[in-house]
Amino acid sequence: MTRRRAFLGASAVACALLAGCAAPVRSADPLPSWNDGAAKQSVVAFVDTVTQQGTPGYVPPAERVAVFDNDGTLWAEQPVYFQLLFALDRIQALAPQHPEWKSQEPFASLLKGDLEGALAGGEPAIAQIVMATHAGMTSEEFAEIVKEWLATSRHPVTKRPYTGMVYQPMLELLAYLRASGFKTFIVSGGGIEFMRPWTEGVYGIPPEQVVGSSIKTQYEVRDGQPVLVRLPELNFIDDKAGKPVGINQHIGRRPILAFGNSDGDFEMLEWTTAGTGPRLGLIVHHDDAVREFAYDRDSHVGRLDRGLDEASTRGWVVVSMKNDWRAIYPPATALQATH
Amino acid sequence: MTRRRAFLGASAVACALLAGCAAPVRSADPLPSWNDGAAKQSVVAFVDTVTQQGTPGYVPPAERVAVFDNDGTLWAEQPVYFQLLFALDRIQALAPQHPEWKSQEPFASLLKGDLEGALAGGEPAIAQIVMATHAGMTSEEFAEIVKEWLATSRHPVTKRPYTGMVYQPMLELLAYLRASGFKTFIVSGGGIEFMRPWTEGVYGIPPEQVVGSSIKTQYEVRDGQPVLVRLPELNFIDDKAGKPVGINQHIGRRPILAFGNSDGDFEMLEWTTAGTGPRLGLIVHHDDAVREFAYDRDSHVGRLDRGLDEASTRGWVVVSMKNDWRAIYPPATALQATH
Repeated sequence: MTRRRAFLGASAVACALLAGCAAPVRSADPLPSWNDGAAKQSVVAFVDTVTQQGTPGYVPPAERVAVFDNDGTLWAEQPVYFQLLFALDRIQALAPQHPEWKSQEPFASLLKGDLEGALAGGEPAIAQIVMATHAGMTSEEFAEIVKEWLATSRHPVTKRPYTGMVYQPMLELLAYLRASGFKTFIVSGGGIEFMRPWTEGVYGIPPEQVVGSSIKTQYEVRDGQPVLVRLPELNFIDDKAGKPVGINQHIGRRPILAFGNSDGDFEMLEWTTAGTGPRLGLIVHHDDAVREFAYDRDSHVGRLDRGLDEASTRGWVVVSMKNDWRAIYPPATALQATH
Repeated sequence: MTRRRAFLGASAVACALLAGCAAPVRSADPLPSWNDGAAKQSVVAFVDTVTQQGTPGYVPPAERVAVFDNDGTLWAEQPVYFQLLFALDRIQALAPQHPEWKSQEPFASLLKGDLEGALAGGEPAIAQIVMATHAGMTSEEFAEIVKEWLATSRHPVTKRPYTGMVYQPMLELLAYLRASGFKTFIVSGGGIEFMRPWTEGVYGIPPEQVVGSSIKTQYEVRDGQPVLVRLPELNFIDDKAGKPVGINQHIGRRPILAFGNSDGDFEMLEWTTAGTGPRLGLIVHHDDAVREFAYDRDSHVGRLDRGLDEASTRGWVVVSMKNDWRAIYPPATALQATH
């Protein structure tokens, strides 16, 4: 957000609070990276509807809850979820402390660089990789590990820092919604404690507005200092039918806007848009092989099949990355700010 | 909050946003129901410390997280937790649909008015009462049941509505903290979905800032309409060492202020005040047998023993209801507004 836009936003808030201003000052275009078209229009029309006091579509600010999937919706997810790349890097980093991994799957394959062989073990293999890299430390130690990894790692294809692979049009949408009185939440299948260390700086979404999958933690006092220890035991999977459950558990009210990109977001979109009053469901369609990655029905990550089939009958807006987005990632110059 | 106070608060926010004002306007006394004394002074001094920009104690607004226990801290909890009274009333209401309860404990005793006999079954009996009254319906249906109960029930001793037994000094403290840039959260052993239907109207705490105990819910589509069904299965107990776990799960950062009243809040206070920088831990001491209820070390609800022993060495402030609070409940005239 430029300083000028930030100031205009603050004026609007001040106006609303003091209730003594004329029509709020409008910045030229809150979504400059969105091409004019049906998708952008549906967003702007929805925001206009719910913010217009005295009209039937008006929604009080407290109920303006917007939920966003993360992987594939707010940032990229190819060639595999970035959290899996984090886990693989951690296996390499931890290997010297685990000589037994040399002869123990899935670690043995991973250490030989054979990802396919490692993942041949299916979900139990993935669970082993996750627990070996995500549990055993305190929550604060894990946050530091995540931050250090993000600060030093680069994406294998784009060579960008991972936080440089967030989608510029979505950053604008998040800011636009917040300036319009929305609370923005992440509701992701990814790990809640993997996201929280950086979502505030990158998306402007504070940790208390991040919902995700989790392992159990345990409170302990070690040498007089209390810590939360991450246990190798699943707590909650925030995906598919788990997303409305996670929304209810953390937010406690039904969102009025939901944005996803895969069939893992289907129930979140269904739950959100089945409520009364104005509702908006949106799906990012990854159809831009040139600027990003093109995939949908047959992808091993971010599979979008049922959502594509049913979007139109359910009134959900399919956003084409190719046609609706003027830019994909933030300009490289903007990345310095977050690193 | 009076209209005048609300306006002054809005001015201060506008000043902060526009960064063009002189020193913020101060309302006379943000805590009129607190007697002048060490407890009140510790709160005001803490708020002054963390809000003073450019000083070592300054805490940015995003990190001004304050957590409050509910039962015995924000509202009364005698003669038993109000949620248990709710459950008992529900047993009576549901009994016609459950003829088998006449010969089945703990229900048989309850229906004969023998609470002691019913609770003789210990925790399994309580669990049976909770599940019979809290599970089996959708989340939205449960919220309606809670609201209906609160609107029509009266406390057995005071004859007040239960939401009229919130503590006036705490309402003022919550408003004062929010006007000072804090986010206020409830972190209670009580049921999260029992609290959320009314915390926003009564305390100004929105559902997404309520942490509590929970049973599991399941997403289902019934006749084309998605619902969340409450299952008779425990999800999380937000009490004792569970409180820091619940805080981490829902808030994702360590609070800087914690307020409790029983040993169930000990770990929450410990976790909060062990952090670096300014921290404040407070305990309500129920020592006013005339205006409320007097109990601590030997009470079956809200037992406060270790907390009393260790408060002074840990630097926690013990707030005497008798000496530190000018009023206990809101004036009866104020109750109309919430009903």
